Amino acid sequence: MSTRTLIRGGLVVTAAEETHADVLVEDGRIAALAAHGTDAARAWTADRIIDATGKYVIPGGVDAHTHMELPFGGTAASDTFETGTRAAAWGGTTTIVDFAVQSVGTSLRDGLDAWHAKADGRCAVDYGFHMILSDVNEHSLKEMDLLVSEGVTSFKLFMAYPGVFYSDDGRILRAMQRASGNGGLIMMHAENGIAIDVLVEQALARGETSPRHHGEVRRALLEAEATHRAIQLARVADAPLYIVHVSAEEAVAELVAARDKGLPVFGETCPQYLFLSTDDLAAPGFEGAKYVCSTPLRPKEHQRALWRGLRTDDLQVVSTDHCPFCFSGQKELGRGDFSKIPNGLPGVENRMDLLHQAVVEGRISRRRWIDIACAAPARMFGLYPKKGTLAPGADADIVVYDPHAEQVLSADTHHMNVDYSAYEGKRITGQVETVLSRGTVVIDGRAYTGRAGHGRYTPRGTCQYLG
Amino acid sequence: MSTRTLIRGGLVVTAAEETHADVLVEDGRIAALAAHGTDAARAWTADRIIDATGKYVIPGGVDAHTHMELPFGGTAASDTFETGTRAAAWGGTTTIVDFAVQSVGTSLRDGLDAWHAKADGRCAVDYGFHMILSDVNEHSLKEMDLLVSEGVTSFKLFMAYPGVFYSDDGRILRAMQRASGNGGLIMMHAENGIAIDVLVEQALARGETSPRHHGEVRRALLEAEATHRAIQLARVADAPLYIVHVSAEEAVAELVAARDKGLPVFGETCPQYLFLSTDDLAAPGFEGAKYVCSTPLRPKEHQRALWRGLRTDDLQVVSTDHCPFCFSGQKELGRGDFSKIPNGLPGVENRMDLLHQAVVEGRISRRRWIDIACAAPARMFGLYPKKGTLAPGADADIVVYDPHAEQVLSADTHHMNVDYSAYEGKRITGQVETVLSRGTVVIDGRAYTGRAGHGRYTPRGTCQYLG
Amino acid sequence: MSTRTLIRGGLVVTAAEETHADVLVEDGRIAALAAHGTDAARAWTADRIIDATGKYVIPGGVDAHTHMELPFGGTAASDTFETGTRAAAWGGTTTIVDFAVQSVGTSLRDGLDAWHAKADGRCAVDYGFHMILSDVNEHSLKEMDLLVSEGVTSFKLFMAYPGVFYSDDGRILRAMQRASGNGGLIMMHAENGIAIDVLVEQALARGETSPRHHGEVRRALLEAEATHRAIQLARVADAPLYIVHVSAEEAVAELVAARDKGLPVFGETCPQYLFLSTDDLAAPGFEGAKYVCSTPLRPKEHQRALWRGLRTDDLQVVSTDHCPFCFSGQKELGRGDFSKIPNGLPGVENRMDLLHQAVVEGRISRRRWIDIACAAPARMFGLYPKKGTLAPGADADIVVYDPHAEQVLSADTHHMNVDYSAYEGKRITGQVETVLSRGTVVIDGRAYTGRAGHGRYTPRGTCQYLG
Amino acid sequence: MSTRTLIRGGLVVTAAEETHADVLVEDGRIAALAAHGTDAARAWTADRIIDATGKYVIPGGVDAHTHMELPFGGTAASDTFETGTRAAAWGGTTTIVDFAVQSVGTSLRDGLDAWHAKADGRCAVDYGFHMILSDVNEHSLKEMDLLVSEGVTSFKLFMAYPGVFYSDDGRILRAMQRASGNGGLIMMHAENGIAIDVLVEQALARGETSPRHHGEVRRALLEAEATHRAIQLARVADAPLYIVHVSAEEAVAELVAARDKGLPVFGETCPQYLFLSTDDLAAPGFEGAKYVCSTPLRPKEHQRALWRGLRTDDLQVVSTDHCPFCFSGQKELGRGDFSKIPNGLPGVENRMDLLHQAVVEGRISRRRWIDIACAAPARMFGLYPKKGTLAPGADADIVVYDPHAEQVLSADTHHMNVDYSAYEGKRITGQVETVLSRGTVVIDGRAYTGRAGHGRYTPRGTCQYLG
Repeated sequence: MSTRTLIRGGLVVTAAEETHADVLVEDGRIAALAAHGTDAARAWTADRIIDATGKYVIPGGVDAHTHMELPFGGTAASDTFETGTRAAAWGGTTTIVDFAVQSVGTSLRDGLDAWHAKADGRCAVDYGFHMILSDVNEHSLKEMDLLVSEGVTSFKLFMAYPGVFYSDDGRILRAMQRASGNGGLIMMHAENGIAIDVLVEQALARGETSPRHHGEVRRALLEAEATHRAIQLARVADAPLYIVHVSAEEAVAELVAARDKGLPVFGETCPQYLFLSTDDLAAPGFEGAKYVCSTPLRPKEHQRALWRGLRTDDLQVVSTDHCPFCFSGQKELGRGDFSKIPNGLPGVENRMDLLHQAVVEGRISRRRWIDIACAAPARMFGLYPKKGTLAPGADADIVVYDPHAEQVLSADTHHMNVDYSAYEGKRITGQVETVLSRGTVVIDGRAYTGRAGHGRYTPRGTCQYLG
Repeated sequence: MSTRTLIRGGLVVTAAEETHADVLVEDGRIAALAAHGTDAARAWTADRIIDATGKYVIPGGVDAHTHMELPFGGTAASDTFETGTRAAAWGGTTTIVDFAVQSVGTSLRDGLDAWHAKADGRCAVDYGFHMILSDVNEHSLKEMDLLVSEGVTSFKLFMAYPGVFYSDDGRILRAMQRASGNGGLIMMHAENGIAIDVLVEQALARGETSPRHHGEVRRALLEAEATHRAIQLARVADAPLYIVHVSAEEAVAELVAARDKGLPVFGETCPQYLFLSTDDLAAPGFEGAKYVCSTPLRPKEHQRALWRGLRTDDLQVVSTDHCPFCFSGQKELGRGDFSKIPNGLPGVENRMDLLHQAVVEGRISRRRWIDIACAAPARMFGLYPKKGTLAPGADADIVVYDPHAEQVLSADTHHMNVDYSAYEGKRITGQVETVLSRGTVVIDGRAYTGRAGHGRYTPRGTCQYLG
Repeated sequence: MSTRTLIRGGLVVTAAEETHADVLVEDGRIAALAAHGTDAARAWTADRIIDATGKYVIPGGVDAHTHMELPFGGTAASDTFETGTRAAAWGGTTTIVDFAVQSVGTSLRDGLDAWHAKADGRCAVDYGFHMILSDVNEHSLKEMDLLVSEGVTSFKLFMAYPGVFYSDDGRILRAMQRASGNGGLIMMHAENGIAIDVLVEQALARGETSPRHHGEVRRALLEAEATHRAIQLARVADAPLYIVHVSAEEAVAELVAARDKGLPVFGETCPQYLFLSTDDLAAPGFEGAKYVCSTPLRPKEHQRALWRGLRTDDLQVVSTDHCPFCFSGQKELGRGDFSKIPNGLPGVENRMDLLHQAVVEGRISRRRWIDIACAAPARMFGLYPKKGTLAPGADADIVVYDPHAEQVLSADTHHMNVDYSAYEGKRITGQVETVLSRGTVVIDGRAYTGRAGHGRYTPRGTCQYLG
Repeated sequence: MSTRTLIRGGLVVTAAEETHADVLVEDGRIAALAAHGTDAARAWTADRIIDATGKYVIPGGVDAHTHMELPFGGTAASDTFETGTRAAAWGGTTTIVDFAVQSVGTSLRDGLDAWHAKADGRCAVDYGFHMILSDVNEHSLKEMDLLVSEGVTSFKLFMAYPGVFYSDDGRILRAMQRASGNGGLIMMHAENGIAIDVLVEQALARGETSPRHHGEVRRALLEAEATHRAIQLARVADAPLYIVHVSAEEAVAELVAARDKGLPVFGETCPQYLFLSTDDLAAPGFEGAKYVCSTPLRPKEHQRALWRGLRTDDLQVVSTDHCPFCFSGQKELGRGDFSKIPNGLPGVENRMDLLHQAVVEGRISRRRWIDIACAAPARMFGLYPKKGTLAPGADADIVVYDPHAEQVLSADTHHMNVDYSAYEGKRITGQVETVLSRGTVVIDGRAYTGRAGHGRYTPRGTCQYLG
């Protein structure tokens, strides 16, 4: 007989159901769920029994947007796949989808191989890859088909960062057409970078060099414009589209309009846009640099539209865009010139907790919490129902979550390899207690019991929101 | 040990998941689900084993809008609770929510008691009640609180049918305010009946008496108007709102606009609006009378908006508004005057099949089929997860559905007590094979094995889409 | 040779042009305009020459919404046709269109005759009549045709004031259908009075009796709802529609949506909604009663939408809804019960000045001032180009306006028969200097030279914005 | 005494008024208008009296979009300033605003001088210039200020034609910012040319080479996208915007949305989009080449939105985009490759007649005809009231128009220097009879009496729709 773990007595919460059920794990997968107290449940025996009485039993989180070790602006994101995925596990996230990068002039294959090399043997939890297309050409278009067959089924393009990741509308259209044919999903960084760069240059020329100007030049209207443009190009290509890190109310409005027409257009936002604002960017001194990311933080008023979008399903996914840079030595590269501040925030460890806090505050329901953090990203990126839910046959990526625990977020206690927390001092009700990754306990009552290399590369199917 | 039934080898389809799982029923409830082929599954024994190999195992349908034995226009709907719920079982529907009626001048209590008396001991499957409010006054408003506590948590009002069911905007507002306080859900028949009655009178005066004029006078704009008005009144009352039998594209647009604002506004449509049209109403001779219902059938072009609304979740529920009148002797009351044709169509038996046909044709996904036909109506009317899903602890209302069977809808073969089928001759792929109601097999391989009185009154909680 | 007046040296401003032109009046009509300084202009001789150097020469104002001597709530508006039209002249308004009233149970003919009797021989400036329909029935519908032929081409209906002026949607539809056939224009008081009356009753029951509660119960959403409903009914009737006294941003949005579709839907607002707000209604003590009118004053934020609507031509007309009640003895009827405060504000004398102030403040252009105050109301109600412009052949209703004069609005100095000013103490740049009515000087350098009875009844053609 | 012409007995139609008035011209300007039959009118004497009884007397047309002698695709537009302005006069257009072109690498000054050289001494009617910016850089941005001061107050940018006229979004933003400061108006060719060029290449690769594919690749969605983008960039720059040759319903919708917000965004369409369609582009053989222009002709269904836009003032101007290429020898350059067909249609002679035909057919009113063809373009481009209306002091650019004459449009009879008519065989009711340009009769009862060199360069003020 196989190895069995039984999680008993908890409230099983998925995107669809809340049931008092016992969960039986066999050989790394969920074998069965039984109503607690039934004969069927009582009959089960197991090698290990975890008592979840008074706790939630939820699917492990799926963070579909991370950038471990990403080279950016002459430095690199400070979390390796090892430190970053370990922090993910601490935070109840059992799958990440990271972005492999094609550099201009190189092939997708080379980029993907490089990322495999970084991750292989180092991860604490399972991982997959999206591919960043920086150089759309005949060759790389053909490679897209190959990558889809290898389980890299999503491709990110940038309307920002001219000279680095930027693709013009013709390249975008070609990539979308290809995706339309091979089942790939185009992910878009939607900001009009060409126009923004003019505003950046003008701001710096006026002596506006501090972090808050980063937020001012990256106008909400230019996020909305790019969002609209990407949608129209996707319509021309007859391709689905996923907008990453939506932050502006006006961009949400573009998604709402597209989805009202029944178009296959999807949107992601991130905890930083839901909980932080330009008030943070405008922190005294150079402190605001900690909050520099793109799309930028917006004025507080935009948060209402993001929460509403999450409730109305006009936004489907909350990812972290985890891309940490230490304040000391990294963020400081941009003293005196906000455009030189590395863009990115840490967050992979905090997402499940921050969103639970939103449950506590009544912004979203418990089931919607699991949906936007686990089920929807898994479906969006072809991992469902292996990941993202608790169902017979699914991977046993399971979190026992204590909804009543109190914690304070802080760089002193977090496990991400970065010298500050974007949420320093924030009080949260709820905490991860125990985490299973494919049946293996990797966090055990707030002790790390995992290991680098436990996490496996997980090839993905195509987007499950289509057809 | 308890009585056990095991449904083995099928594809379990719920609104959220599709899993190859075996379903274990104990004492009328679902005890457990196990991944097919696992040790856990193989270990199960049962009194009865149903082989579902190659079949779907789905939740029994929840039809949230039926009118058994409804008195209307001097006659009464031809299905009794006995014949109607038996037909429901044949069609894979294991719960109906019927409308008890308060007549003008009487109490809610009297109306509800009368409907209990009609249904008690006669139903083949479980049932609940909504309450039609025809006379909103201080007394009936107070009774609403009582009914909520008895599990009658939804109240239907009419903006049409002046002199019968009609409530003016003041009464509607008062009822909404009361519902806002007691957790009730207002259901609205949204047509401007005051204006329509003018058009009816004018049409008859012009000699336009045939069934198709029924569709012409009940203008789509007047459905949209009433929908908009109901939404605004609900905003004033700070109450949720459910619009029944949405048929017009313009009414869908009002729901879309409201939901984009994040308002708790919901919409139901019915198979007749999805599959039939004014072409049917305009059938030669008096045949069109078979298709007279209100809201009326619309031109074919409207169907696209309804399907889109179902896909974008701007419409959540498909119910039947089952309200059959025989052509002979009943529909014929309106020869020479369309306004005298009893309003209503049969359909309780056909809903699950028609919507599966939409799956076959690629209009909706398999999971969305179960959502709109089972899970969403159960959630909307406080029956979830007891009804509407297959989860540990749920009532064992289960349908084994053969997705490959071929059938032709016809009055010759249906089980509803009405002398015509609205879908006569329509070919359907897919058919109900076996049906369990609380663990009891009531349809067994296309044989009826149920009995009048098996079905129980099911008190309901409040709407689960709120908060 | 005829009597000639020459207005020389001013800047002639119409809705369309600004020209330095001399205006030649012959026998009460404008005979010619000549570019100032041309041979043609220099050749002119006249009996009287008015020097307008440094001044504007503008068309006399057209106030399309006044209620002189209106019986309301057991009292009557305090301006008679004599005092009211004299005040109009003082304020640069040379035409009013007042509302004759059909009472329930009487004919349009009787109502119109009664109003003719009140006005005949008493007016200082020209006047026309709209007809208020309080009792839509077969007889009154037929009378509408007759009235159109007599120059009463517009008919006001009320969705508010149940039991007094209120018409239900069926009566509204019938009246619209009739207007669609006879060229009449339906004017609508768009508030859901049935719902409002519930809120009034509830507020009073809660002890909310002061003037500001008048504004709170008459919810903006209920103005928007009624506006939407009226538009839909007009679409069903295929009739044009004019919404009176639009005050809520949400109602403007309904007009915008309708006009974007190309529908013949028009909107009027009033100075009180542009310059006053709920802050005034909430004045200490019973002072707020001075600002009680329906639709009510709205929170300040709504003003922005009204100004924008005037700029984008989604609102076409600014009228006064002049309906003055003295604070002392009249407004005071509602002490302790806001619902008993007579509804209405004085304003016929202030409109041209207040709107010029908006020009000074940059809200509207000089030409738009003349458009919304003179040309558009004249076109809307079939008086153009006889009234509302300065063109060869037009009535010589001319105002010499000093754009640099400074004045302070006050009950101490105004000429309306009412004991308070809604704009007490407000500073205005600009003032009427001289006014001609059909060539006769009625205000001469801020002295009244007119007389009761100079003003003539002016039959109107049909709306000139159609076809 | 000066030279005087008197136009007597006609119906004077302007954008604002219709009056039976006599028009007195002194020294090339309109001295006065008098009501026909008044003493003032009868007193007038003149050197020449034109009897306009039964005719319209209207302002000369203002065509704000022509391309005389434009080099394009290796050839040049076939009308010179001499032949083109003569044809304009024949068609009742007395002012054109043509586009001077800055080539990449040259200055605005050089481009403007070159266009002055082409036009000087050759024009039959008055003319002004817009400036096409092909090379936005520090130098050309500064030159913009200079040009505004010389009366070249509008600047056209292209989002299409990469490598020729195309500006990227950064250049567009900079030019808009400059215009925001100097009062200039940015005119935009709004098509996403980068994406379109991909579609062109793909179509040609598929062997889709005929004229109709020109229309297919230039997708309506890509016109709407660019329109939206231009609007957002203008918002960022806080600048007004004028979209040229709007052809797609979806682009109109973008203008409607912007204008509903109160943004200073304007739109022009052209007769070819109002009267022609993809049916013409798909003419057999290579005939469709006659109808190749960009934006392209659209399916007929789009026309409805354009007419509605003209009625609702969401489109303000109808210009011709006159840019003729002979079929023989010019259009033929694109046989076998639609992308080589010179883009452009003849039309300067037909505009006033085609729009009068729309009056005859009830699509627009008489006054709206004059507005969109004369007054609005004059206001938009700072020529009002000198051009575009008949008012004291205005230039005596006057057309006596016979509303009852019948004509058939044809290359056999037109005066444009091009070997085909886009409207060959079209019957029109209405015809230009006599035309005055600054008081000089240039068309006299359908005989040309003008001369090359009569037309003068007319410096323009800034847009009169702002502030």
